[in-house]
Amino acid sequence: MASTLPPIEIPMRTRKIDWINNFWKMLAHDPKTLRRTWESVKEVMTPGALDPLVKEMLYVAVSASNGCDYCIASHTAAARKAGMTDAMLMELLAVVGMANETNRLVQGLRIPVDPQFERKA
Amino acid sequence: MASTLPPIEIPMRTRKIDWINNFWKMLAHDPKTLRRTWESVKEVMTPGALDPLVKEMLYVAVSASNGCDYCIASHTAAARKAGMTDAMLMELLAVVGMANETNRLVQGLRIPVDPQFERKA
Amino acid sequence: MASTLPPIEIPMRTRKIDWINNFWKMLAHDPKTLRRTWESVKEVMTPGALDPLVKEMLYVAVSASNGCDYCIASHTAAARKAGMTDAMLMELLAVVGMANETNRLVQGLRIPVDPQFERKA
Amino acid sequence: MASTLPPIEIPMRTRKIDWINNFWKMLAHDPKTLRRTWESVKEVMTPGALDPLVKEMLYVAVSASNGCDYCIASHTAAARKAGMTDAMLMELLAVVGMANETNRLVQGLRIPVDPQFERKA
Amino acid sequence: MASTLPPIEIPMRTRKIDWINNFWKMLAHDPKTLRRTWESVKEVMTPGALDPLVKEMLYVAVSASNGCDYCIASHTAAARKAGMTDAMLMELLAVVGMANETNRLVQGLRIPVDPQFERKA
Amino acid sequence: MASTLPPIEIPMRTRKIDWINNFWKMLAHDPKTLRRTWESVKEVMTPGALDPLVKEMLYVAVSASNGCDYCIASHTAAARKAGMTDAMLMELLAVVGMANETNRLVQGLRIPVDPQFERKA
Repeated sequence: MASTLPPIEIPMRTRKIDWINNFWKMLAHDPKTLRRTWESVKEVMTPGALDPLVKEMLYVAVSASNGCDYCIASHTAAARKAGMTDAMLMELLAVVGMANETNRLVQGLRIPVDPQFERKA
Repeated sequence: MASTLPPIEIPMRTRKIDWINNFWKMLAHDPKTLRRTWESVKEVMTPGALDPLVKEMLYVAVSASNGCDYCIASHTAAARKAGMTDAMLMELLAVVGMANETNRLVQGLRIPVDPQFERKA
Repeated sequence: MASTLPPIEIPMRTRKIDWINNFWKMLAHDPKTLRRTWESVKEVMTPGALDPLVKEMLYVAVSASNGCDYCIASHTAAARKAGMTDAMLMELLAVVGMANETNRLVQGLRIPVDPQFERKA
Repeated sequence: MASTLPPIEIPMRTRKIDWINNFWKMLAHDPKTLRRTWESVKEVMTPGALDPLVKEMLYVAVSASNGCDYCIASHTAAARKAGMTDAMLMELLAVVGMANETNRLVQGLRIPVDPQFERKA
Repeated sequence: MASTLPPIEIPMRTRKIDWINNFWKMLAHDPKTLRRTWESVKEVMTPGALDPLVKEMLYVAVSASNGCDYCIASHTAAARKAGMTDAMLMELLAVVGMANETNRLVQGLRIPVDPQFERKA
Repeated sequence: MASTLPPIEIPMRTRKIDWINNFWKMLAHDPKTLRRTWESVKEVMTPGALDPLVKEMLYVAVSASNGCDYCIASHTAAARKAGMTDAMLMELLAVVGMANETNRLVQGLRIPVDPQFERKA
């Protein structure tokens, strides 16, 4: 059972990789947070209604929008491994840029939500 | 030529819709910003290396991460039109939540980028 | 001396207005925070190297970028009082949108600062 | 016509400068994004209802509020070129700080918008 | 075992409450996200090195800083239940405001981290 | 009186420290901003309804959530001096991460505030 392993070995065994990045090394100082984070990330990023490439691209989009340098670097690498090309990355970032632009235009103009977009009860 | 049309009619003709949402109505007060924004959004969201559904989902992800209520409502509607199911939306938001969580964990712990993630010159 | 007045009357006397907005009313529940905030805002917004109109426009720009609805509404009103026209507001928001777009493009691409932009010691 | 030039030369010719910063170099990998971004920035930052100095200061304000280090460095340099003094920069940042402080106070207290600030129909 | 219960009943049994808030009701549409979020929140918010009141106040601080209205409302209520007084809330928000102000001042001035603050290897 | 001292000496005398960090050194270029910021920080961080350790932890939480590297470094150091252990820091950051996750889930799902959480008039 995964739960009997020392926490730092969980990522290595699950992902069959031979190095551990600084994120998991850092979390290993707190086994409870490491285990919870590891299990949550694994559950969220597993293939489901969305495939892993789309999930990694969504991760990059949020990280770019939040300006988290480490997360941009690591998830861009993960997305490339999952098949993201240079052209796909540039289009992804173009959408991120455009969304940030119109998000702030909309808020600055205090535009009310059209009834057509409202959730039905 | 699109540029000879009064700006408010551009979206209606291009998208073959019979209503204009508040965003485009608002921008119509400033024809220059309307035209630039319209043309930019059209160029960015057009199918390319990424398909329109993925692009709309990236838009939702950024808008959720920025807390822009209007943009979440309108782009969730657009993504649904492009084929996003409830299950896909929930997985999308699970990734958005997880990315926001780990982005802030990483920044709070001041984790340095692993050399393996750095761009080669 | 202002400091001998009950705090809720400070804004009314200083600004010669006959109504108090919800922000100052709310802060009046905590006289210490009211007084510090009032004095800080007064010092920061007073004419200096920048005139009050530019200062109010900067306030709107930050508030739009943060999505603070109350602050957008109140500082847009203040900026209009200080002379901001519709055309100026639309250009202001166009800059806010563009800055948000390129900020996130730059961060997503992890672009290093050019030495030409670095501060000299 | 600008559009027949290789994209990387557009900024050099338009701005009559002898070096290209990392932002434009990076975007040059994607000619479509380079051209759109270049033309949008040029349109938005051109003198209009607001002069270029105010526009650059608004750009700095948003970039500081978003924590985009590259954008702060490059637009502070641009604003200085357009005439921003040290005293103006310090006042600009004092407004940015104050706006960020009150934005979050207002949101934390859930202060409703006064009817006096609401847009008339 | 909790895991054999229909997910929507988990919060009711654990917290011995007779109503479910909109957050858990909404997540109940996606049992997987509901269960993961519920278990994560329970683990994170449980008394440990920090007591529940401090944890709820940290939650309010982040939510205020992110402008999440629902989260501010619900976690302010939870913090009050855990013992937060009006005076404590106002001091909490004063710190949130001050932190947001100096965060952006520091980033706008591009202040380098003092070696005294750097982590030792 | 503090106000007759050259501004750069205020922090040294008040805190009885023998070095000045880059934040106060930088602000010293603008005596007005230095004095206002110094006095505000001192008033906000002074023991009151909340003790200094809780206040420093709230400061770290906001700074982590905003990704302000300098502020995270300096206020983590201050919090440690005030008694924060490694275990407390990890729990603090776990709450910050969870709050960021659920803040964005809530906004992405556009969850309405329950009447039970609304302020009574």
